[in-house]
Amino acid sequence: MANSGNSQEAVPPVEGVAGGGTAYGWNDGGTAGLSNLKGAIDPTEIPTKDLVNVWCMPSTANVGPQDMPRHLEPTNLLAARNERESVQIAIRPKVSWAGSGVAGAVQVQCSDLCSTSGDRLIVGQSIQLRRVVPILGVPDALVPLDLPVSQINLFPGETAALWISIDVPSAQPPGQYEGEVIITALKADAESSGQSLSKAEKHQLYKELKDCLEMVDPIDGKPLDEVVGRMKSATTTLRRILLSPSFSEFTSDNGAVDKMEEDAISSLSVRVKLNLTVWEFVLPETPSLPAVFGISDTVIEDRFGVQHGTAEWYEELDQHFKWLLQYRISPYFCKWADGMRVLTYTCPWPADHPKSDEYFSDPRLAAYAVPYSKVISSNVVEKDYLQKQVEILRTKSHWRKAYFYLWDEPLNFEQYDSLRNMASAIHAYAPDARILTTYYTGPNDAPLAPTPFEAFVKVPSFLRPHTQIYCTSEWVLGNREDLVKDIIAELQPENGEEWWTYVCMGPSDPHPNWHLGMRGTQHRAVMWRVWKEGGTGFLYWGANCYEKATAASAEIRFRHGLPPGDGVLYYPGEVFSKSHQPVASLRLERLLSGLQDFEYLKLYASKYGREESISLLERTGVYFGPERYTVEHMPVDVMRGQIFNACRS
Amino acid sequence: MANSGNSQEAVPPVEGVAGGGTAYGWNDGGTAGLSNLKGAIDPTEIPTKDLVNVWCMPSTANVGPQDMPRHLEPTNLLAARNERESVQIAIRPKVSWAGSGVAGAVQVQCSDLCSTSGDRLIVGQSIQLRRVVPILGVPDALVPLDLPVSQINLFPGETAALWISIDVPSAQPPGQYEGEVIITALKADAESSGQSLSKAEKHQLYKELKDCLEMVDPIDGKPLDEVVGRMKSATTTLRRILLSPSFSEFTSDNGAVDKMEEDAISSLSVRVKLNLTVWEFVLPETPSLPAVFGISDTVIEDRFGVQHGTAEWYEELDQHFKWLLQYRISPYFCKWADGMRVLTYTCPWPADHPKSDEYFSDPRLAAYAVPYSKVISSNVVEKDYLQKQVEILRTKSHWRKAYFYLWDEPLNFEQYDSLRNMASAIHAYAPDARILTTYYTGPNDAPLAPTPFEAFVKVPSFLRPHTQIYCTSEWVLGNREDLVKDIIAELQPENGEEWWTYVCMGPSDPHPNWHLGMRGTQHRAVMWRVWKEGGTGFLYWGANCYEKATAASAEIRFRHGLPPGDGVLYYPGEVFSKSHQPVASLRLERLLSGLQDFEYLKLYASKYGREESISLLERTGVYFGPERYTVEHMPVDVMRGQIFNACRS
Repeated sequence: MANSGNSQEAVPPVEGVAGGGTAYGWNDGGTAGLSNLKGAIDPTEIPTKDLVNVWCMPSTANVGPQDMPRHLEPTNLLAARNERESVQIAIRPKVSWAGSGVAGAVQVQCSDLCSTSGDRLIVGQSIQLRRVVPILGVPDALVPLDLPVSQINLFPGETAALWISIDVPSAQPPGQYEGEVIITALKADAESSGQSLSKAEKHQLYKELKDCLEMVDPIDGKPLDEVVGRMKSATTTLRRILLSPSFSEFTSDNGAVDKMEEDAISSLSVRVKLNLTVWEFVLPETPSLPAVFGISDTVIEDRFGVQHGTAEWYEELDQHFKWLLQYRISPYFCKWADGMRVLTYTCPWPADHPKSDEYFSDPRLAAYAVPYSKVISSNVVEKDYLQKQVEILRTKSHWRKAYFYLWDEPLNFEQYDSLRNMASAIHAYAPDARILTTYYTGPNDAPLAPTPFEAFVKVPSFLRPHTQIYCTSEWVLGNREDLVKDIIAELQPENGEEWWTYVCMGPSDPHPNWHLGMRGTQHRAVMWRVWKEGGTGFLYWGANCYEKATAASAEIRFRHGLPPGDGVLYYPGEVFSKSHQPVASLRLERLLSGLQDFEYLKLYASKYGREESISLLERTGVYFGPERYTVEHMPVDVMRGQIFNACRS
Repeated sequence: MANSGNSQEAVPPVEGVAGGGTAYGWNDGGTAGLSNLKGAIDPTEIPTKDLVNVWCMPSTANVGPQDMPRHLEPTNLLAARNERESVQIAIRPKVSWAGSGVAGAVQVQCSDLCSTSGDRLIVGQSIQLRRVVPILGVPDALVPLDLPVSQINLFPGETAALWISIDVPSAQPPGQYEGEVIITALKADAESSGQSLSKAEKHQLYKELKDCLEMVDPIDGKPLDEVVGRMKSATTTLRRILLSPSFSEFTSDNGAVDKMEEDAISSLSVRVKLNLTVWEFVLPETPSLPAVFGISDTVIEDRFGVQHGTAEWYEELDQHFKWLLQYRISPYFCKWADGMRVLTYTCPWPADHPKSDEYFSDPRLAAYAVPYSKVISSNVVEKDYLQKQVEILRTKSHWRKAYFYLWDEPLNFEQYDSLRNMASAIHAYAPDARILTTYYTGPNDAPLAPTPFEAFVKVPSFLRPHTQIYCTSEWVLGNREDLVKDIIAELQPENGEEWWTYVCMGPSDPHPNWHLGMRGTQHRAVMWRVWKEGGTGFLYWGANCYEKATAASAEIRFRHGLPPGDGVLYYPGEVFSKSHQPVASLRLERLLSGLQDFEYLKLYASKYGREESISLLERTGVYFGPERYTVEHMPVDVMRGQIFNACRS
């Protein structure tokens, strides 16, 4: 009887001789750490901390429903002025007390943050609170909560996460600010709804009151004894109504409204302390790194049912543009054609429209796309249109922000050639116009060099002078950061040539990108990478490129063939609530954090030099290269703290 | 410039030359398959199928929140009498229409199943509806829904699953039964709650009515003109109340209650057809396979706050016992001591108590555990107690179901020896008493044979005559099904010795077991395995062995050191609702299905022989061995259908 084929045999199936997890009985008396909750649970009488676990997590953490509780500690944040800092609060029920599918509801109330000298960061203005909602099971969408008080449902065995963002205004006095988020378990809805009248009860009440009215009206001309009789009947009916169960809670407490309903906060609440250091550095209003982000106009048209060129269409695009500006990015609208020709435009209105100057002069906009052809078709000849637009724009001081983005990743000689022709036409009217071209390969049917990478590097010599902004895929580098110098060596910065980068489908894990399911620091690292590699701009193809739908509140589906989250950085508000306000993803917030880190690094470099700034990135363990960067949040805070210490006055 | 270190380079980062997922613009006009929802969505005017996807899934499917829609097809089920068959309905919102954190709510209404000859399976009696709730992210808990009409909330991007079970009574006439589950999207709560009175509104109303009453009461002895004046005031007040916005919906429609609210079902609903074939076979009331399942009394005492031996304690244990009987298993209560000595007892009352006969005579109980010592301590000498119990029980016809389970997995000589001493004491009073011993190894300090497996096989020779039921871990076999014959060869069935098996921590994936996260067929296969291997009984150590807690509604935590779900087959109802009724896991339902399959196979074997029944298991692709069994549901239905065809009259 051999033992072969059964190699597990020597390992006992339970943990240790006493049975590990199974030993719980005769000699088990350990109740340490357990609350002594017994019987019916009334959250108005039990400390909230006995009902829920509450703990803080940094903004780079992906807090999912299965996350296990940690110790609650005060949160210490550092922010410059004109900066947004975020932190998360996780809540997980220890027990169920509501009893109808949810474990219970908690009220979340956020206070202003106040400094010792009386300055304030006001909730609802500088402080916003959002609920983290999973997309494809991954925490991603940030759905706004009401402020200053909101209510959220907790589910048995599920951790909920709140995202708290503080926007420090540029004029905010530096100093130490303190505030708190107060979490209070609420009585079950079922019980409080027992205090409101259902439609059926209301209908009953209505009928009785109507009968009552009919008894006493009209009385004119009626005999006195009848009037008195009717009046007594009405009186009896009224008294019966008032003594009915519908109004029972008023008859006992003399009509006083329950205090708890007005303000649930009490000594039972959990208070999460928020400490914020605001320092004097003001993040530049115009981002130092032009980061241009595509918005599909077609997606907007389909989803929100606005027809191209109508007043509603302009209104819709305007809302998207303005909303995205808060993320330190420069939006451009985009429509894709065959062969990946793209029509890109930052402003839907033509150059002679007042909106054009309003858009392009906005100091938060670092770069804008000028359309090659008309966005709204009409009878005017196309060529004239381009010429006129360019002639108007060239006279403006914002012209230095302008670029033309004509083709997304040309692949063959014909595509490269079309691009050159389009660029020639533009340069004919404006020799100083900047053409931006995204690419990851040379023309595959006319190799520029023996190997694909050499051919890729040679693209500038092939495109010159038809492109000024050479925007290459980070994917091309793989884990070979050193190849950056080969790309840069081919460029002529003295002739205004720039190197920008982009991410899209690639690079994939473990490299930095914004795909759903990547780590928080991986999302934030996209911009650490840009800083280290030294590109002077960045492009992302799509912020709203989910699958086609014709209803604003239709389910979000990511596009077939793309990694989840690729091309989608925010969601239509209607999917989550009645609000038309877009819903940001965690990934968009981390992109913003990365762009803010970029400003910190730039400040540091301005004092200590660029080399020293890269040394700081490495010294603090934040970022070494595309396959080596921190997975923990701590190094990020350490780096920011060192910049604060080194640069504050 | 070599290409080394960048092997991805030849693969374009977008799908195909046209850009795959990114190409959606100029030339994209495909809206096929898209609904034409536009603007505000009113579920009372739009077919529910345009708002949600609805599809059916078999009971062996784990339907999680990320599951993608399938085509809706009618469900065809086959059930014997005294059998439970289950099917799932998955629902996923296509859009959000409620606008407050949920995508929307649907009403679920289940009809009776009716046969052509007018027989019925009545909803609420024979048909139950439960919501599938994830535990640790895995669909597991089955939380009862109200019947016949219930309402569930759907969340954006999440698939919800309903579990429909049909219990066919033993006396149900065979035939074809039909019914349906009707799913209807409901208007948002916010809107309908606009039709009920809030507490504040109600309070206002109360005050006005009270004022009104005070105007007219008392009137006795008041001058006539004052009476009339007051009456007119009251009339005016009443009229104003009735015309207020609170009652506006009644003033316009003359008080008729909105039809939709009473019955949401309409031509807009999605109707899921359920077809059930009931055949004449009646599953035996007493399960053919004694399957004994442990329930920790300590867990019950701690969690539900009942003190050992009190009236509430007996009541609590009684409820657990009765509830578990519906799953064709024979419960025993259990307490663990050091060295894994166990005190096991199926009936908490002593043998001379009327409850003892009630429990042990229940035809659904296939086996019962008799405690070795007193469950409730008192001053009576222990030895007398055992003797008296045995003397009473031996006189009963249910004595053939009795067994003594004394030690859980003895590991060393001392433990084996203790077990033998206890067994001797029992056999002194009842030579025909059956001692059950679970083991996976011989005494590790007194090897019975050169190799661990040989020593394990020799345990019967070491324990004889102190054990009659040799209950071995399936884990010991690994993937060597052929080792079964070695175990059986050591036993003496002619002397009443039996071979039973058990699963616990092991075996683990891919072998059959009831851990959370395993496939549905893997859960069901535990009993297919028992049938094929030929054991005559089965033991499972714990059905309620979650981590200690002192509140009924405390979060469920699995025990440290055990695989998730191990030892936990049902949950306290209080975690999910106000109900004290236990909540079954999917795994418990699949265990029941496996036990029912066992009866089908036994029926088949009774006509065609045991070998043929095993051939059927293999021929239909259901089960070949512990590493080879179906992952799809279809073979299960095929096997059951073949048994139906081969065995029906």
